[in-house]
Amino acid sequence: MVDLVEFPLDPDAPLSSLVYAFGGAEAVAELKPGQVLSTATRDCFAGRVRTAADLPSQVCDLRYINPQTGPFHIAGAEPGDTLAVHFVSIEPSEPWGVSATFPFFGALTSSRDTATLQPPLDERVWVYDLDNQARLVHYQALDADLRLPLPMDPMHGTVGVAPAMGEVRNSLAPGAWGGNMDTPEMRAGATCYLGVNEPGALFSIGDGHARQGEGEACGVAVECSMNTVLVVDVIRGDYAPWPRLETNEYLITTGSTKPLEDAFRIALTEMVRWIESLLELTTMDAYQLVSQTALTPIANVCDTVYTVTCKVPKALLPQTSAYGGIHQALSSKAAAL
Amino acid sequence: MVDLVEFPLDPDAPLSSLVYAFGGAEAVAELKPGQVLSTATRDCFAGRVRTAADLPSQVCDLRYINPQTGPFHIAGAEPGDTLAVHFVSIEPSEPWGVSATFPFFGALTSSRDTATLQPPLDERVWVYDLDNQARLVHYQALDADLRLPLPMDPMHGTVGVAPAMGEVRNSLAPGAWGGNMDTPEMRAGATCYLGVNEPGALFSIGDGHARQGEGEACGVAVECSMNTVLVVDVIRGDYAPWPRLETNEYLITTGSTKPLEDAFRIALTEMVRWIESLLELTTMDAYQLVSQTALTPIANVCDTVYTVTCKVPKALLPQTSAYGGIHQALSSKAAAL
Amino acid sequence: MVDLVEFPLDPDAPLSSLVYAFGGAEAVAELKPGQVLSTATRDCFAGRVRTAADLPSQVCDLRYINPQTGPFHIAGAEPGDTLAVHFVSIEPSEPWGVSATFPFFGALTSSRDTATLQPPLDERVWVYDLDNQARLVHYQALDADLRLPLPMDPMHGTVGVAPAMGEVRNSLAPGAWGGNMDTPEMRAGATCYLGVNEPGALFSIGDGHARQGEGEACGVAVECSMNTVLVVDVIRGDYAPWPRLETNEYLITTGSTKPLEDAFRIALTEMVRWIESLLELTTMDAYQLVSQTALTPIANVCDTVYTVTCKVPKALLPQTSAYGGIHQALSSKAAAL
Amino acid sequence: MVDLVEFPLDPDAPLSSLVYAFGGAEAVAELKPGQVLSTATRDCFAGRVRTAADLPSQVCDLRYINPQTGPFHIAGAEPGDTLAVHFVSIEPSEPWGVSATFPFFGALTSSRDTATLQPPLDERVWVYDLDNQARLVHYQALDADLRLPLPMDPMHGTVGVAPAMGEVRNSLAPGAWGGNMDTPEMRAGATCYLGVNEPGALFSIGDGHARQGEGEACGVAVECSMNTVLVVDVIRGDYAPWPRLETNEYLITTGSTKPLEDAFRIALTEMVRWIESLLELTTMDAYQLVSQTALTPIANVCDTVYTVTCKVPKALLPQTSAYGGIHQALSSKAAAL
Repeated sequence: MVDLVEFPLDPDAPLSSLVYAFGGAEAVAELKPGQVLSTATRDCFAGRVRTAADLPSQVCDLRYINPQTGPFHIAGAEPGDTLAVHFVSIEPSEPWGVSATFPFFGALTSSRDTATLQPPLDERVWVYDLDNQARLVHYQALDADLRLPLPMDPMHGTVGVAPAMGEVRNSLAPGAWGGNMDTPEMRAGATCYLGVNEPGALFSIGDGHARQGEGEACGVAVECSMNTVLVVDVIRGDYAPWPRLETNEYLITTGSTKPLEDAFRIALTEMVRWIESLLELTTMDAYQLVSQTALTPIANVCDTVYTVTCKVPKALLPQTSAYGGIHQALSSKAAAL
Repeated sequence: MVDLVEFPLDPDAPLSSLVYAFGGAEAVAELKPGQVLSTATRDCFAGRVRTAADLPSQVCDLRYINPQTGPFHIAGAEPGDTLAVHFVSIEPSEPWGVSATFPFFGALTSSRDTATLQPPLDERVWVYDLDNQARLVHYQALDADLRLPLPMDPMHGTVGVAPAMGEVRNSLAPGAWGGNMDTPEMRAGATCYLGVNEPGALFSIGDGHARQGEGEACGVAVECSMNTVLVVDVIRGDYAPWPRLETNEYLITTGSTKPLEDAFRIALTEMVRWIESLLELTTMDAYQLVSQTALTPIANVCDTVYTVTCKVPKALLPQTSAYGGIHQALSSKAAAL
Repeated sequence: MVDLVEFPLDPDAPLSSLVYAFGGAEAVAELKPGQVLSTATRDCFAGRVRTAADLPSQVCDLRYINPQTGPFHIAGAEPGDTLAVHFVSIEPSEPWGVSATFPFFGALTSSRDTATLQPPLDERVWVYDLDNQARLVHYQALDADLRLPLPMDPMHGTVGVAPAMGEVRNSLAPGAWGGNMDTPEMRAGATCYLGVNEPGALFSIGDGHARQGEGEACGVAVECSMNTVLVVDVIRGDYAPWPRLETNEYLITTGSTKPLEDAFRIALTEMVRWIESLLELTTMDAYQLVSQTALTPIANVCDTVYTVTCKVPKALLPQTSAYGGIHQALSSKAAAL
Repeated sequence: MVDLVEFPLDPDAPLSSLVYAFGGAEAVAELKPGQVLSTATRDCFAGRVRTAADLPSQVCDLRYINPQTGPFHIAGAEPGDTLAVHFVSIEPSEPWGVSATFPFFGALTSSRDTATLQPPLDERVWVYDLDNQARLVHYQALDADLRLPLPMDPMHGTVGVAPAMGEVRNSLAPGAWGGNMDTPEMRAGATCYLGVNEPGALFSIGDGHARQGEGEACGVAVECSMNTVLVVDVIRGDYAPWPRLETNEYLITTGSTKPLEDAFRIALTEMVRWIESLLELTTMDAYQLVSQTALTPIANVCDTVYTVTCKVPKALLPQTSAYGGIHQALSSKAAAL
């Protein structure tokens, strides 16, 4: 018997009533550890960008970008704990998605921080047909007659909890609380671990991507609204300083800051500390093992700060159970739904 | 009939006679386009580090780190051309490899550039058993009773040509000339494209790794001597500003600089320009396509500057032939050996 | 006749009742444009560190670091305006100040973001005698018999308003809202311009330094409590995107982000835009003039992000009146007190 | 009696015969320690850019940018020593100088490393009248009727020796060997200390600036040819790992790398080590003293890597004699000329 909580979107909610930050908002609902949440998220433009003519800088109100579903209060989650969120399914809810360029946003343009005197790149919008059955998203060039099917790989760009120290951070920012990490690893089947900073954790999700390239170079993935099912649990008294993920294949750590080598340093030290603890190795032995086994895909180079992930294949390690085997337990629960 | 050039190592050559730089050295031999080179490389410590007691800072002369085999003068290669190097095979030539930490070297320590007042990490050496038959390298913890087999995945950390502007760059540095990029993509089956800066290109290789993690976090992979077979060819009048690679599965670009986000920017703009040219797309359409399809593993965060690679799966693109199909041609030649 | 508002510290206020952030707090008082505020600030350790034995990591609660005085609601200040704050006087209120090292904090150590596996530097505390009459602060070596008088140069490390987009940012962070910029230019006689994001601006100050070196390398200046007098005014409808300062000698812009070259880029583009507007020059002519006249001292390389200032001597420019001559007007008002 | 060596420019030397690198070139003359050298340098464009119509990308051959005068072989200078170069006078030799923007070069544009897809800024040339008598350089706006006299402050952007490890580095690059640091501190009256890597040091100078702003934002100062008089000396057995300077007022260290915070870290650790040694302090006491006394102007944010200087006022320190008082000795010799 599944303990399911349904939290559908209210299609009539005005944009000004939605949540665009981590921290600072009242919980919209309470979840108990072990409960399954079935919910939905708006796309990052809140549905305002639907055609090539809908230039984001014209149709969007910049205060209302990247709305989140939540925050959810997790019963019993206390500062110093870690929240475990297992994604059961993440499915596009409309047959279309969009990408775009936005003035002074993205990796291959000057930006607010990497300020130059050059004019912005052209602002353009690409509309993708999404085919959930065929698991494809269709790229269509704007200025040429080229159409390419790309594998659908749905994920959430934004997953997080209320930040530490009482901060309130806009949903465009990634950091130690999670937020806009934009890693394609945040797909169905993954368990995300987030250190709890406020009572109830105050967990939110948003920013669904039908797929994205690593680094999210132009700053905008194949953005779409999502139907998402997830299970939550709480790990008592063991605080994850930075978001971690676990899949059947990988242990994954993240670091989000600038410059990008510091994001790498965070993700790698996190992995060394995790391996050291799981395998009961000295720091130097763990450092060596991670150095020869890590995969280090970049997640984003476009948000307020940048994110690197470090992945170590579980198949290369002795059998271990991170956080008491919670990923396996939640995966089993998901399989039984 | 194969046009094979053998260039074996001279085991008696004094370390002071070897080449530790790109540029500034006389060619050791000439190769004609299409010729197959069978050669060998010393490990990065030139064989001085063989046991856990051989601390690199004690047994190595810092002037003689990372010796290269070469440079080879490629007949007819002129500035403005691009050299294509296809790796037919890269095989460890000894049943052992080593890794180590070195004071103030690596990603998870302060360093010469990221200077702090802290003392260095411990200097340690890990010896790996290499098993070419089983395709395994064996990690053995120093301070615990843990032994783990890891997949062998041989590659060259250092591949390059003489730099532009008459510069001579130490073999520890990566850059536009190639050099110490330390990307695991440089394995057998890959074709590496290098813009030619000096007549004859003056191509060298070294720094064999039986395997490495992405980012080469501790600064030292599973270092070993190699037997390597490769084929060279020359692409006339089309200069690759930064090293590129091609495999049967991927188009790959590289960028090497600091901070790491700039290395990302170089690799990604290179890929946008490549895709734009191959698919006859506008820059913005190519930017969009690369943004949704790129994989962006970090190669190194330990050398004098850092390297990012950008990989686009060829399966996602329309059929194209980069550089007139030279990768396919060289792969066929390799298959026929 | 001076319109003076006194807002003294409450010495009995518990630390948990103080404000440690920009944004998210209720105003403690209202000021009208043109009013003079006489107030005081606690040192960054809230008085907990007084002797060499008071190691900050032991005596401080990390939630209660860098308390701010404020926020003050400025009557009539609306989003899109700019707040002008002129510092009339900033005077140490006790005859002592302290500096310290703190584990993994400062420029010459690994840190939370520049994460390494090395142990922290020693945690030490230096107590300075402050002599307001002689305008000296006295350095005393801990491990040697060396005592050196250094010029007193009092300033506020932290000056800011509520951030944009509803964010709440800890008082250790600098950014577009001001905050912990740690520039020694924030001394008596300077006017600070801050773009208003929330009704009433919600202006706070704190983090008094009896002096600091540029860059604040060890992360902690000569920290002390302050008595401060300032005047506020509002510039309608002209939003400063990043904090600016004006003195009798200099126009000053700031940028706060990482990496440090981006902070430089922000400060310099801000100055180019300011000069372009003040002198009615084209962007390229302003870029040229700034390139040959700018002074670019680093403010901090220790906080959550780093700050660069760009200073152009007014003596090199034609006579201009930034923001309608508000600095001169406020300076005259200050002189008349 | 002065031991003077004259080394005038050969105005008829073809550009291809000049030296554009540190390392890799034969000495043009030998100097003995204590000898005075009277020489001259070409401007960075080798005289090709003289009017607003001389766009550098059109009139210059990129192989022949930033010619150096030298290298000079310093008798007796051996690896492990430090070369001291005291600048007696640096005087513009023509009544004009030029600045310019160059495509994808400078701090406020995307560049080769900070690669974006944006077009370059306009390429423009500004011609300055130089008045050695009045000590003024005259800025003239291109697009407006604004002319401003700015103080003449002549200096050399490029001063260096042959790099370590046998490298040859283009004269546009700064680094541990000196090179294109572009610090305005390199003016008459300063003594520059450079660690010797090759026998004879192989010292060169170039890139005269009639003045520059800190950071050299647009990438080009007020470039001019120079007549320069200097004295050299050798400090035996004490190797300066990064260039240092000394003036009557300041001890100065430099760091050149990217990101800019690493250049700061290098300069500051160098200063801590220098102060520690000069004042016989522990590292932590020196760290504290430097933290409260350092000035940290940025030198360049436009070259291949960026430079930060750290200056500590000698007036704040106990009387000390860096390098045995060599700066005072060379200053006295200069005064006697």
